[in-house]
Amino acid sequence: MEVIGIKIAIDKSINTPIYIQIFEQIREQIIRGQLISGFKLPPERKLADSLGVNRSTVLNAYRELKAEGLVESRVGNGTVVLSSIQEESSNANEFKEPTWNHIFSQYSAGFDSHLVKDLLTLASRKDVISFATGVAAPESGPIEALEGIEREIIENRNFRALFHTPTEGFTSLRTAISGLMHRRGVYCSYEEVMVLSGSQQGIDIAARVILDPGDIVVVEEPTFFPAVQAFKAIGARILSVSIDENGMRIDVLEQLLQRYRPKLIYTMPSFHNPSGVDMELDRRRRLIELANRYRILIMEDDAYGDLCYDGHQLPLLKSMDSSGYVVYISTFSKNVYSGLRLGWMVAHKKVVERFAAVKQVTDLHSSSLSQTIIERFILSGGIDRHMAKICREYKQKRDIMCDALSKYAPKGMTWSRPKGGYYVWCKLPEGVSALELVPKAAEKNVAFIPGSAFYASPGLEDGNLRLNFTFAALKDIDKGVFRLCEAIKELMQASKKDDIYTDIEINPIV
Amino acid sequence: MEVIGIKIAIDKSINTPIYIQIFEQIREQIIRGQLISGFKLPPERKLADSLGVNRSTVLNAYRELKAEGLVESRVGNGTVVLSSIQEESSNANEFKEPTWNHIFSQYSAGFDSHLVKDLLTLASRKDVISFATGVAAPESGPIEALEGIEREIIENRNFRALFHTPTEGFTSLRTAISGLMHRRGVYCSYEEVMVLSGSQQGIDIAARVILDPGDIVVVEEPTFFPAVQAFKAIGARILSVSIDENGMRIDVLEQLLQRYRPKLIYTMPSFHNPSGVDMELDRRRRLIELANRYRILIMEDDAYGDLCYDGHQLPLLKSMDSSGYVVYISTFSKNVYSGLRLGWMVAHKKVVERFAAVKQVTDLHSSSLSQTIIERFILSGGIDRHMAKICREYKQKRDIMCDALSKYAPKGMTWSRPKGGYYVWCKLPEGVSALELVPKAAEKNVAFIPGSAFYASPGLEDGNLRLNFTFAALKDIDKGVFRLCEAIKELMQASKKDDIYTDIEINPIV
Repeated sequence: MEVIGIKIAIDKSINTPIYIQIFEQIREQIIRGQLISGFKLPPERKLADSLGVNRSTVLNAYRELKAEGLVESRVGNGTVVLSSIQEESSNANEFKEPTWNHIFSQYSAGFDSHLVKDLLTLASRKDVISFATGVAAPESGPIEALEGIEREIIENRNFRALFHTPTEGFTSLRTAISGLMHRRGVYCSYEEVMVLSGSQQGIDIAARVILDPGDIVVVEEPTFFPAVQAFKAIGARILSVSIDENGMRIDVLEQLLQRYRPKLIYTMPSFHNPSGVDMELDRRRRLIELANRYRILIMEDDAYGDLCYDGHQLPLLKSMDSSGYVVYISTFSKNVYSGLRLGWMVAHKKVVERFAAVKQVTDLHSSSLSQTIIERFILSGGIDRHMAKICREYKQKRDIMCDALSKYAPKGMTWSRPKGGYYVWCKLPEGVSALELVPKAAEKNVAFIPGSAFYASPGLEDGNLRLNFTFAALKDIDKGVFRLCEAIKELMQASKKDDIYTDIEINPIV
Repeated sequence: MEVIGIKIAIDKSINTPIYIQIFEQIREQIIRGQLISGFKLPPERKLADSLGVNRSTVLNAYRELKAEGLVESRVGNGTVVLSSIQEESSNANEFKEPTWNHIFSQYSAGFDSHLVKDLLTLASRKDVISFATGVAAPESGPIEALEGIEREIIENRNFRALFHTPTEGFTSLRTAISGLMHRRGVYCSYEEVMVLSGSQQGIDIAARVILDPGDIVVVEEPTFFPAVQAFKAIGARILSVSIDENGMRIDVLEQLLQRYRPKLIYTMPSFHNPSGVDMELDRRRRLIELANRYRILIMEDDAYGDLCYDGHQLPLLKSMDSSGYVVYISTFSKNVYSGLRLGWMVAHKKVVERFAAVKQVTDLHSSSLSQTIIERFILSGGIDRHMAKICREYKQKRDIMCDALSKYAPKGMTWSRPKGGYYVWCKLPEGVSALELVPKAAEKNVAFIPGSAFYASPGLEDGNLRLNFTFAALKDIDKGVFRLCEAIKELMQASKKDDIYTDIEINPIV
């Protein structure tokens, strides 16, 4: 078939995967100069429809083209052929440049976080109101966490902040963290605590410690996508369980456990990312019972649990765990400073030992300076005062965002009002695509993350948005929601018209 | 066969691996109470000899016993049966405690860094003179790297030190590092530089980006053992090339390249760890030629290259790399502060991109605060002044160590005089075991790392020591070498006598 200058013939009778066939044919046309620099490839969905293949097939072909540096895709700008291909390829021959795709591992080929990276670049522009990030408000501090640190190190010669630490972290910090955990109802000793370089590291190490290729992991859907990336990277298979307004569907989970033998359940029971849902107490109890009965580890990701704005926090899964099946992870990124890269885990001593052995190979230990800063901040009581302050601030921001949605949202749009955490989860009116909304919102200088980023099988879901309310300045939230809702309304108008590709005749050859 | 109360029957006709047979039989005897708490298992070599198996087979069996918490081994104290097994196992039933060995991945089962961990614990005792670590002298500073940091962050409101960074690191720091690289003869742009959480992370990510299970990695032998751990963890096969006084044997390497198709060559050409050897210029050139010809990536680990005490540094492999096959990694741990956990890599942009994608899943980014401190220290010129100072200090320490060895070493012992770096590599007199020397030296309050820790196939080599000369105080080095040499001499005396196990009759059943 030919679509505006691209010729693609798919042959289903040969062994070459279809995405490779598409990739190779476009590649050849670029290298031969038949597709010149600046040429805009058709949108993935259009090409998929015209070839009669899945959208993900075209997505994979485009991904290969990107990996070879032949095309580039930018949010709101489509996929564009790059210049100087011929010069580069002649250079490549001259210098025998490695054929990168053959040098890189299968494992690493699975990584592509282009969209999110683009969104975060967009979100960092000063004129953009960003609901896209997952970070704290910069103006909220707690700058006091650093006061006196320099004198303590230099004058008091507290050099431990600068040298190697045990892989598990300073014992004094692990003890301080076990104190925090006691107040969350988890009576652990310091030996059950390990310091992490952010909770992301905990997920990555869990994948390596617990999963072999082919093992099954159960995740919620939607879920925190870097976790899925880490599990998939090991070669694990992902099963997902939907969530409703009371959290993970434990009835669905039980059916899965009966049929499959997963190795790990990854869950965010408290103020779930992205949905904001808090798992109800009864489901938490049943989840623990199931883990015990089926002897499956639970990873409880509790990045947001202490950011509770209404009522009280529900008990942590870890606080109900009498047999050691729960691996709890949390972070100081959401309540202190993300740049310090510090999180922690609480688990059975044997799990801590195994995690530590892998962490040693990964980064030896987490920054000693970051550990020193956090330890002082816990022991001084500063962290408690700070938490009280940001809970007040974030509650107010959440209320402003929800109020603004009530004012501006088009008909058919719905959203949650989370009791805690960082995110409002919105459902767009029927037929409106969150991915198509991204460039439209960018035109209006507002950024968000489309819900599909949080689905284990991307492309299946395209009607939700995750809106962060902690990062944007208080005064900007109403304005940002207004802009976003205008963009949605415009998209609803536009979707009634034809777009550029529909008037081109497309006839799949096969 | 029976050796002091242990009964082991090996059956080579069945499929169960021999180490599992040994493990299971000892395990059963412990659980039945036939081997009671405090019972000392025979040394691995003795048991291996008596059973007619490899020492590594017994080592693996003991490792499984350790993993189950049935025995414990401590430096200088052998392997001892632990108490309260029966109570624990009944507890386990009551609480349905996970059967950990089935829960953990194959991958993570390969980690065991007990010996080194024990040595580092020993080395941290105040009365011990430590040649075991690989860290800088605490008194050498550079404490000035931190001066003014607090004011800069708090008063100047330079909050970027506290928030998220791009995964690749601050562009300004990457630019500053490319400046350092220019002075080392590598003319890279900031886009070819990526910040790492220590160079260990670079090795770990390289393993994940480049290697699939079954891929072959070539390492020097001896080599930096955590690198081998990281490669093996992915399921890679390790081929080793010996080194002589001029570095890696390139002739041997070439034979390997012809026969196998390795994916990666891991090398430390400059002031190699542990051997201290500097690869001669001609071999560096030939290594680059081979990489180009066979299209194989080289990972150049340059943790020590700028610590040069005699003459000039030889050109880096990366400075000779015109085709992008060299992935260069280095660290600020050896010349600034290890506790900041900061290193960097220099590689082709496509390699940097791929590494960044994996790093994002691993820890999102390195500590922003550490990045800020290092960036200031580079830009102020402080790092240059500091390097000049520590090179003077470490040169003096090296000289004192080598002089002390000349004075005290027993006949038959030889050692290197490295032109740079951190380590003197010693060969013990014929028949003296470095592993047996560990507890003997510990009695005399001196610590080192036995050479076998640096061999890809542990247990094959046992006649070398790695002595670090940078950490110990100047005044302690002579004393420490004296103590060590006394320990060697005592061991040489003792090895003429029979030890406790030789008078027990040992008859392998099979």
